Amino acid sequence: MPKMNKIKIDAYDLLKKVRINKPVIHHLTNWVTIYDCANVVKVLGASPVMAHAKEEVADMAKIASSLVLNIGTLTVDFIESMKIAAGSANEKGIPVILDVCGAGATGLRDTKSFELLDAVKIDIVKGNASEIARVSGEMVLTKGVDASEVNKDMIEVAKGLASKRNCTVVVTGKEDIVTDGEKLYLIKNGHPMMSNIVGTGCMASSVIGTFSAVEKDLTLAATAGLVCFEIAAECAIKKSSGPGTFKEQLYDCLYHLDKKTINNMQKVEG
Amino acid sequence: MPKMNKIKIDAYDLLKKVRINKPVIHHLTNWVTIYDCANVVKVLGASPVMAHAKEEVADMAKIASSLVLNIGTLTVDFIESMKIAAGSANEKGIPVILDVCGAGATGLRDTKSFELLDAVKIDIVKGNASEIARVSGEMVLTKGVDASEVNKDMIEVAKGLASKRNCTVVVTGKEDIVTDGEKLYLIKNGHPMMSNIVGTGCMASSVIGTFSAVEKDLTLAATAGLVCFEIAAECAIKKSSGPGTFKEQLYDCLYHLDKKTINNMQKVEG
Amino acid sequence: MPKMNKIKIDAYDLLKKVRINKPVIHHLTNWVTIYDCANVVKVLGASPVMAHAKEEVADMAKIASSLVLNIGTLTVDFIESMKIAAGSANEKGIPVILDVCGAGATGLRDTKSFELLDAVKIDIVKGNASEIARVSGEMVLTKGVDASEVNKDMIEVAKGLASKRNCTVVVTGKEDIVTDGEKLYLIKNGHPMMSNIVGTGCMASSVIGTFSAVEKDLTLAATAGLVCFEIAAECAIKKSSGPGTFKEQLYDCLYHLDKKTINNMQKVEG
Repeated sequence: MPKMNKIKIDAYDLLKKVRINKPVIHHLTNWVTIYDCANVVKVLGASPVMAHAKEEVADMAKIASSLVLNIGTLTVDFIESMKIAAGSANEKGIPVILDVCGAGATGLRDTKSFELLDAVKIDIVKGNASEIARVSGEMVLTKGVDASEVNKDMIEVAKGLASKRNCTVVVTGKEDIVTDGEKLYLIKNGHPMMSNIVGTGCMASSVIGTFSAVEKDLTLAATAGLVCFEIAAECAIKKSSGPGTFKEQLYDCLYHLDKKTINNMQKVEG
Repeated sequence: MPKMNKIKIDAYDLLKKVRINKPVIHHLTNWVTIYDCANVVKVLGASPVMAHAKEEVADMAKIASSLVLNIGTLTVDFIESMKIAAGSANEKGIPVILDVCGAGATGLRDTKSFELLDAVKIDIVKGNASEIARVSGEMVLTKGVDASEVNKDMIEVAKGLASKRNCTVVVTGKEDIVTDGEKLYLIKNGHPMMSNIVGTGCMASSVIGTFSAVEKDLTLAATAGLVCFEIAAECAIKKSSGPGTFKEQLYDCLYHLDKKTINNMQKVEG
Repeated sequence: MPKMNKIKIDAYDLLKKVRINKPVIHHLTNWVTIYDCANVVKVLGASPVMAHAKEEVADMAKIASSLVLNIGTLTVDFIESMKIAAGSANEKGIPVILDVCGAGATGLRDTKSFELLDAVKIDIVKGNASEIARVSGEMVLTKGVDASEVNKDMIEVAKGLASKRNCTVVVTGKEDIVTDGEKLYLIKNGHPMMSNIVGTGCMASSVIGTFSAVEKDLTLAATAGLVCFEIAAECAIKKSSGPGTFKEQLYDCLYHLDKKTINNMQKVEG
């Protein structure tokens, strides 16, 4: 593992840009957390749009500033719509984020993840350790959509995938890894309660998509997005009595997140 | 613009009818806010049912007292189911509400909105300013599903659409417009926080659908529904610390809404 | 009606097993409450996975410890996926729970409920009184997805269905009935607020599915699950100001539920 040092990134600067520019973030996502994906974008100050009909996805991507794909409840037809949307996003030059939700759980998820990665340009691949390992070609068994333990050095796996696919890779976990194959950030913010509710993983992808809409350095954008989201979680836990109230407070804290809080609380190494 | 005067409407009377009669409100809506559409109907005291299979929508509409359609995540097949459901609703004589969510954003949304308006009798068309302008045939570009600024006098646009389509038109915004082409109500209740979360627009359509199930004067029904919903939002903001807690309090306040609060807080012009 | 006595069941023991074993609970459920179904499983300490593509449901069922089916927003294709998933679950020997949500409301729901019951082995059938009566072959008309009054002695109806289908039958209501045709439990926990929000019925099925993953006596598992869920509701009502906050507190209380609370508050007859 490379030697890492504590650094400061200007995450607030990007959050401010999101709030001012209000970019449209187009999603083709799963049916479980679709509301939360939309709402987290809205609470950040941006404008979510969810559209999956193959007849309109190309048009919708054209009025968006980034595209978020999530295979959590994939079907064969839905993946075809994703390809059309991503093709349109590629043409326009907006970033495409792919959450490989549940990769490793079934053959279909593996096959379709690879199909997407081969068919279109994915700018950011995001998953937990077992999902990213699987998409990297490592043999691991995903336990449903929750992370399984992975023994390989995830930093090397992530770097390898980033280099191979010429993209940014985000591995979420107790510590998050963000890398483009060379540059590397570790984010040590967040709270264990995030993994006690459904949706924080998918929301993280939407947050990354939102920050990517205002910053061309996608490794920085992804890192800044995760920092903001996870600091909000740390604030939320103090105001909640369990997973239900935590989630509502997560929205409140993200909405009110300010420069001072971000600068004081961020734990990033690079 | 016509001269408008402050008036009082008996919104509580209709809310009471909803609570007593518990009408079934059939929805074919979008996948983002489907829970909130159902839950707002339930919290009002009525009985939501969501059903979209083409094999059962006609039957379901027959046991309902109103039908709410929302094109937020439309597909071609889904619109076909909407036509069948609306045809059945027309036959039974129950009101059909159409939320033209995202009209103007893509060609598909425009085409399908017009197709629905032409194929079946829509009793209430509801959207934000840019959506209603587009459905009226005005050339505006919708920014995803959020409202764009519209320069035309929206009251005239709304009246024109109502006359042309022989329906009630609802334009939501800082001030809401409700008109059947002749009668006109302006509602000045509500709170800006409503536009900082996903779902209030769709929920408003479900509220309107619910009130339409107990009152034949649909312009009055829509106005009363919006008044109740937006007064609840004003109450909710006082008990919340941001968008997450606001939404939960919105349900609590709507559930507890009483005659005195409605009568004291309503801001309607007509 | 048989003579019933107050009894104590060791519901906490099963909850503890859920928390320790973290079973994967595979769902093919409806689009309205899919988030809540997943989240209630997560908050219990288990691992939800929602997957409905016909190409992967058999694989997903194979890594799961139980399968929950819910016909709330059924389509013909979706039922076909359910059959494949249930066939795989049957082969693996994991319990299959069927929530006959809305049975009786349309011909499609009746036909498809019977089709599922005939095509695969359903281990637990769950519904409200009117739904269970319909699936038993009784002639009742369901009012949408909410319970209608049923005059027949529901205990006898439930026992009859359990014997006929060789399964456990759960009838939810003010008092819940759980029976395998011979053994019989009545659960008198819960709070009326549960029926003022959307989702508690579907969540109950997911809770039952979760408990069934750790206990082979499915009548006991279903009873223990309902006891825990409904005691959490009784705790939640004390901390909430209406249906919105109630739902968040329901998650918090379920997450924190302990042995003492369960033992002190349970109201079971058997």
